[in-house]
Amino acid sequence: MDCASSRIPIICRDRVSRKALEYLDIVEKFVEEECIPADYAWSAQLDGASSRWEAHPTILNDLKDKARKLGLWNMFLPKAHFPTISAGFSNLEYGLMAEYLGKSVLASEATNCSAPDTGNMEVIARYGSAAQQNEWLEPLLEGRIRSAFLMTEPDVASSDASNMQMKIEKIGDEYVLNGSKWWSSGAGEPSCKIFLVMGRHFQNSKDPYKQHSVILVPANTPGVKIERMLSVMGFDDAPHGHGHITFSNVRVPVSNIVLGEGRGFEIIQGRLGPGRIHHAMRSIGAAEKALEWMLMRVNDPAKRTFGRQLSEHGVIIDWIARSRMEIDASRLVVLNAAIKIDELNAKGALREIAEAKVLVPTMTLTVIDRAMQSFGGAGLSQDTPLAAMWANARTLRIVDGPDEVHLQQMGRNENKRRESVTAKIKMQKAKAQALFMEHNLPASRGFLGNGMLKSML
Amino acid sequence: MDCASSRIPIICRDRVSRKALEYLDIVEKFVEEECIPADYAWSAQLDGASSRWEAHPTILNDLKDKARKLGLWNMFLPKAHFPTISAGFSNLEYGLMAEYLGKSVLASEATNCSAPDTGNMEVIARYGSAAQQNEWLEPLLEGRIRSAFLMTEPDVASSDASNMQMKIEKIGDEYVLNGSKWWSSGAGEPSCKIFLVMGRHFQNSKDPYKQHSVILVPANTPGVKIERMLSVMGFDDAPHGHGHITFSNVRVPVSNIVLGEGRGFEIIQGRLGPGRIHHAMRSIGAAEKALEWMLMRVNDPAKRTFGRQLSEHGVIIDWIARSRMEIDASRLVVLNAAIKIDELNAKGALREIAEAKVLVPTMTLTVIDRAMQSFGGAGLSQDTPLAAMWANARTLRIVDGPDEVHLQQMGRNENKRRESVTAKIKMQKAKAQALFMEHNLPASRGFLGNGMLKSML
Amino acid sequence: MDCASSRIPIICRDRVSRKALEYLDIVEKFVEEECIPADYAWSAQLDGASSRWEAHPTILNDLKDKARKLGLWNMFLPKAHFPTISAGFSNLEYGLMAEYLGKSVLASEATNCSAPDTGNMEVIARYGSAAQQNEWLEPLLEGRIRSAFLMTEPDVASSDASNMQMKIEKIGDEYVLNGSKWWSSGAGEPSCKIFLVMGRHFQNSKDPYKQHSVILVPANTPGVKIERMLSVMGFDDAPHGHGHITFSNVRVPVSNIVLGEGRGFEIIQGRLGPGRIHHAMRSIGAAEKALEWMLMRVNDPAKRTFGRQLSEHGVIIDWIARSRMEIDASRLVVLNAAIKIDELNAKGALREIAEAKVLVPTMTLTVIDRAMQSFGGAGLSQDTPLAAMWANARTLRIVDGPDEVHLQQMGRNENKRRESVTAKIKMQKAKAQALFMEHNLPASRGFLGNGMLKSML
Amino acid sequence: MDCASSRIPIICRDRVSRKALEYLDIVEKFVEEECIPADYAWSAQLDGASSRWEAHPTILNDLKDKARKLGLWNMFLPKAHFPTISAGFSNLEYGLMAEYLGKSVLASEATNCSAPDTGNMEVIARYGSAAQQNEWLEPLLEGRIRSAFLMTEPDVASSDASNMQMKIEKIGDEYVLNGSKWWSSGAGEPSCKIFLVMGRHFQNSKDPYKQHSVILVPANTPGVKIERMLSVMGFDDAPHGHGHITFSNVRVPVSNIVLGEGRGFEIIQGRLGPGRIHHAMRSIGAAEKALEWMLMRVNDPAKRTFGRQLSEHGVIIDWIARSRMEIDASRLVVLNAAIKIDELNAKGALREIAEAKVLVPTMTLTVIDRAMQSFGGAGLSQDTPLAAMWANARTLRIVDGPDEVHLQQMGRNENKRRESVTAKIKMQKAKAQALFMEHNLPASRGFLGNGMLKSML
Repeated sequence: MDCASSRIPIICRDRVSRKALEYLDIVEKFVEEECIPADYAWSAQLDGASSRWEAHPTILNDLKDKARKLGLWNMFLPKAHFPTISAGFSNLEYGLMAEYLGKSVLASEATNCSAPDTGNMEVIARYGSAAQQNEWLEPLLEGRIRSAFLMTEPDVASSDASNMQMKIEKIGDEYVLNGSKWWSSGAGEPSCKIFLVMGRHFQNSKDPYKQHSVILVPANTPGVKIERMLSVMGFDDAPHGHGHITFSNVRVPVSNIVLGEGRGFEIIQGRLGPGRIHHAMRSIGAAEKALEWMLMRVNDPAKRTFGRQLSEHGVIIDWIARSRMEIDASRLVVLNAAIKIDELNAKGALREIAEAKVLVPTMTLTVIDRAMQSFGGAGLSQDTPLAAMWANARTLRIVDGPDEVHLQQMGRNENKRRESVTAKIKMQKAKAQALFMEHNLPASRGFLGNGMLKSML
Repeated sequence: MDCASSRIPIICRDRVSRKALEYLDIVEKFVEEECIPADYAWSAQLDGASSRWEAHPTILNDLKDKARKLGLWNMFLPKAHFPTISAGFSNLEYGLMAEYLGKSVLASEATNCSAPDTGNMEVIARYGSAAQQNEWLEPLLEGRIRSAFLMTEPDVASSDASNMQMKIEKIGDEYVLNGSKWWSSGAGEPSCKIFLVMGRHFQNSKDPYKQHSVILVPANTPGVKIERMLSVMGFDDAPHGHGHITFSNVRVPVSNIVLGEGRGFEIIQGRLGPGRIHHAMRSIGAAEKALEWMLMRVNDPAKRTFGRQLSEHGVIIDWIARSRMEIDASRLVVLNAAIKIDELNAKGALREIAEAKVLVPTMTLTVIDRAMQSFGGAGLSQDTPLAAMWANARTLRIVDGPDEVHLQQMGRNENKRRESVTAKIKMQKAKAQALFMEHNLPASRGFLGNGMLKSML
Repeated sequence: MDCASSRIPIICRDRVSRKALEYLDIVEKFVEEECIPADYAWSAQLDGASSRWEAHPTILNDLKDKARKLGLWNMFLPKAHFPTISAGFSNLEYGLMAEYLGKSVLASEATNCSAPDTGNMEVIARYGSAAQQNEWLEPLLEGRIRSAFLMTEPDVASSDASNMQMKIEKIGDEYVLNGSKWWSSGAGEPSCKIFLVMGRHFQNSKDPYKQHSVILVPANTPGVKIERMLSVMGFDDAPHGHGHITFSNVRVPVSNIVLGEGRGFEIIQGRLGPGRIHHAMRSIGAAEKALEWMLMRVNDPAKRTFGRQLSEHGVIIDWIARSRMEIDASRLVVLNAAIKIDELNAKGALREIAEAKVLVPTMTLTVIDRAMQSFGGAGLSQDTPLAAMWANARTLRIVDGPDEVHLQQMGRNENKRRESVTAKIKMQKAKAQALFMEHNLPASRGFLGNGMLKSML
Repeated sequence: MDCASSRIPIICRDRVSRKALEYLDIVEKFVEEECIPADYAWSAQLDGASSRWEAHPTILNDLKDKARKLGLWNMFLPKAHFPTISAGFSNLEYGLMAEYLGKSVLASEATNCSAPDTGNMEVIARYGSAAQQNEWLEPLLEGRIRSAFLMTEPDVASSDASNMQMKIEKIGDEYVLNGSKWWSSGAGEPSCKIFLVMGRHFQNSKDPYKQHSVILVPANTPGVKIERMLSVMGFDDAPHGHGHITFSNVRVPVSNIVLGEGRGFEIIQGRLGPGRIHHAMRSIGAAEKALEWMLMRVNDPAKRTFGRQLSEHGVIIDWIARSRMEIDASRLVVLNAAIKIDELNAKGALREIAEAKVLVPTMTLTVIDRAMQSFGGAGLSQDTPLAAMWANARTLRIVDGPDEVHLQQMGRNENKRRESVTAKIKMQKAKAQALFMEHNLPASRGFLGNGMLKSML
């Protein structure tokens, strides 16, 4: 039967537990049959509301109730790293589910698996004090409140995170914060109650990666002001939104620090690995959805051109094939990274995660763009989910660091092999030289059927 | 330790037996330390010979002896499908080895794992009669003779294999063959003793895929004439070579037919699957080798430009990173296909094999091209293996069917989902419509924050 | 001095009149110093209005007044084709101006050079009756009213324009129209008073390109209903907008037909040529603007990463160079097409126009995408014009026919050379054969240093 | 009539003299009807010779005779810069001819317009002493001898030309040269009598571009040794060839210096401009030829696949269209650069030349690759000119500096606009701010329909 569990790539199928297989199919059914229809209704409720930002479409709560009944809740916490509070799935297993969640606007939140809460919950679960966990982790795990992670700043180039300037001063038994943050996703929601704020604690310490701290700041703390909401390619993403927020003498008790002073980078590095897997798999789900819409369109008998179905035009078939192939290849890259996180941890899977981070968004954008193009004007309009999906996928080439930063990092790591590969090739040439002598071959003879100079050897 | 077995992608590491891990490292060491140096000497022996086509560089025999002693022989026959004569490895395991074999000109032949013999041995082992196996399979398995597969023809578009015209007539107890073949790889070698020849047996049968047969034709049969050898981007590939061969009233006994009259397509479809995995993995090995040469070059202190190492230029680091990433992604695609062949068979892995077939050569060409470019002029010359590797990889976009044929086939297969995805999207719209009514939403409301027309629902 | 007239590519500089050079610099100054600042204020006026669709930002009228005083009005009407009403510029000269107009949201309309009015004015000027010209052309030329062109339909694949279904029936001395149109750009404006409507007049005539007519329909005709406005990648483009409009028994006098029954394709073919040049040049202006914003960003001293300006990273410099190069190449293609229209007409410049139509939008999207990426998150937000420019450029791969339709058309035209090139190559081979005989060369000798078979000759 | 003169892009047609139009058609006819057939025979003569490197195929001399009779000789010397010895054509006019010369292996040499002689003749004509011109320029202009330019060196990264190490010492009244050169194209020919050698004259002068000199060294000077010939992607390019040459105490009189000590860079900068136009236009001719072969193939009735001509497959038509479009765009870029050289000089056309240098080879490789792919295996073999053309075009991404060096240079030049564009955008924001105040708009209002923060203004 064709269902989510039957589509797991064979290369990792045997790593998925019977329970996960079962839940995977439940997730698919829930997404396709409940969440996607609800997406439309949610959008309509929001649009009809007097203010997009204060609206609370009820449709989402209905979905949450359904999800809980199905046992689809907090699947993102990997069992290996959070044995006590995990729903019992590995990163691989949740990754497979996240692909389906990514096909819907609402599915991730409906199952309490949506960013940035997932990463924030991981941070508090891993690094938070017991008091912090009691106050914030509990309601987050129950989906009663939401949270935001405030990192990127408008006044510096945040792609180099060590640039962050939000000032943290310890005054008495309080931390006082001053500065600006933006792209604070989720900050628009009335239910967003807690901000994890990264700021600069020290100016002069030598290691640029030991100057920042993460502080818990309740959203309603005096001095916190949401200046405006940012749009993404014209989409405001209400009521979730992406906030531009200023901090003016915002005061919190010193007990609100996470892990310790100057340990901010330690936290974000642990935080970002699994999150990138989730993003990437959701993005793959979006690509699959775009391909499905494209298949519908190019076979629509009402949309024949020049005497043929669109699907009978060779270029369209080529697009379909390439989309299939590129999606499949990308998925393997992400799942391989997920497994490496499962078996080692995010730090041990640095290369694999980076590969997924860079490959997937570009693939997704390409697939969605083909689908948009196959729809003609409708593909850019509100009549398909494609435009919004494209805008969303476009952000993934920037969030958590632009592609170029990851590529430079990957390239430098790969370049560390320079000495060993140079030594190997020199060894091979020396051995070849010995063979030349042994066989009385002229030294200037050579390579692959053509003369090879001494310099080669 | 950094060795071949340590580099297996984690996603499939647990599928590789202890024995295969051990042999994989032996293969790597054999290739890097014995075969690659021998490549240079072999080329020099060949170049110094009076005729490139009659030359028998002794260096290859030395390698074969070493390979046998190391137990590296016939690793390509998968244990699942050839339990009695297999060396005991799966397609996955041999695929991992083939990557390393692909780094050397000689390694595949030195271990009796070189095309087209591998595919030919599979054909005779799977479909040949006992007599055929005695006469041809034995000496092939022992590496005493070599073979060629004669399929492509100069006078038709062979990318559509049903076009093949080589005429097979049954006259008395003989088959009489007339016609032309080319790209008969390996036909140039004096040790090539047997041709597997595909020809047209029937003209009028309705099914175009039941008209052809495969006949065993000894290379020295009267009427067989090697007209010339073809070059590939200027390389003649001597003494292996790619023959253009004519058949004039070539007669063989009827017992030389394989499997039966009209069953040629059955044979080639079974033959091509694993072979594509081998090609693809060797091609990945070539890409890895190109990357190694590139790393050597861009860190060569003698080759600084504008005050910096080449590796300090951002664009070069970008190339290195992309190469790493693209190689890794492609490898996962091939290994996934190999496992599917192992668990099902080539037919069951049609999609996965096609994806590997199309993705890998383009990736390899891109990586080699970057390496060539980083070397400047030297990269195009005989001073690096890159030009020959590029020419070789370029053929893979054509052999066994050009990319475009595979893409059209893949696209049409994917397009078979049209009805189910259309039904699903319509179901989702209908459910959304029901939610609109339930929630008293105006029917023209819509999608993702913007108005959506009735036509959407 | 660096000004617009100094940047004209040398290849066509001598074709630009002294007057046009002078006006070109005036256009640049007007756009950069007046229009672009006004874009921001206009947007703010619109945003503050109670309804985006009924708003009339006064800022635009101020600009129109300035434009008229500068003599910048109706520059689009080419002197060769409209000697009496032209402002005196060629398509080349106006094309050069259009590049600068394309850098601003308002500049085209401020100079009465905005689509779809430009094309509509051309149609009425060229094909309209005197009465039609009196009633509609006059006020359009004066900028007192605006217009829309209703062609694309939601229920068919409009990329094949012969699919259009809007029904036109002649009943008495009236035409009665029924059907749906969408992407009716400009229909949202209160000042949009007249629609040029393309519909199907005949069902059974043999030539599919002689079945449609163009009818003038006043926007306030009973039965015309704007159902909704379409968004483009999330942008609604208010108050201009892209309308989805239904026609229910819409009646107009038979004198409202343009040119004659069944002559719709004649009209749109004449209409689209120059319009594509305008679009393309404006698009090039957008690309130049994106490059300017990128240059500003990557040299912003506040935005250093990893110890360097963004502009010191090699990949960024590579993007800048490629953007420069690709913009320059595209501009030449468009200007060459403009000149061909000037010297011949749109039909004579079919190939050149199609090349511009396909090349420019993809180039523009690439350049804008690089600029967005160099800005990080800000590049996708409302803080730069880039996102809106990207959305606008994306439509150009679809409007006036998707890229793929143009490419197929171009390809088929180019393929018409098949017989002449085949004959030429055969002639060359025959002559070579004669040389072989003359020089006593063996017939199988060959090509470029390698053996060439008889089949070659 | 369809002939070369009728195909000149309209944008520059009026710049071509009547005489040039006439000769352009003569060139085309000579190339298509005489040179291309002779290419095949020349190759056969060469192949049949006992040594490829000492062979003198007579066919070339026959062509030279024909060329002279047609008046096709030395067309490359631009009339503006060499009024006395020019054949009377501009760079634009010769560029148009060079496109056709580029379709044949022999045509350039047959008309005495082949590299590196063209550049060498320009150097001696422009910078040589009267004695040098008498001795070397005369016989070169008459085609009695050939020459080589020795610049690139094997032991340094020559893409940064200031790295060159060939040592020049003045000892008495002689210069003594020691070092290695490679990619010395043409050095393989027996008729190659004179080398222009660039070497390092000074070690410590501050300006790295004033340390090198160009010395005339007769090929038979003692101490000059051709070590070997380099191959390009497997092609040896005999008898022209690409030499690897060593200099051991090579002595020439001091009068053999060109222009003066330390003025080498002055010479090569003047030399490279027009040469790049020639290369680029010949490369475009190769692309046109590849497209012609492709058109022949995809319409060959013997090569139908899956029931259709190849040209009926949509992907093939797409390739044809893109090839047409990309060739046309590239040609405009080159012609624009040629005109700029004509009107200014090579230095004044730096940007335009660099754009041509980078754009054309990649375009040509793409077009040839599509043609190769459309031929299947034959496309890689000796049966079409495509493989040799590809190898030739591939070198153009490296010779005269790799693409990447040109792109970095272009990017840095473009980046010089940073201050002016930043100032302009700031001015626009300031003006917008003033409009906001004037119209009582809130300062935080914004851009393109969405809120825009103060930071924007």
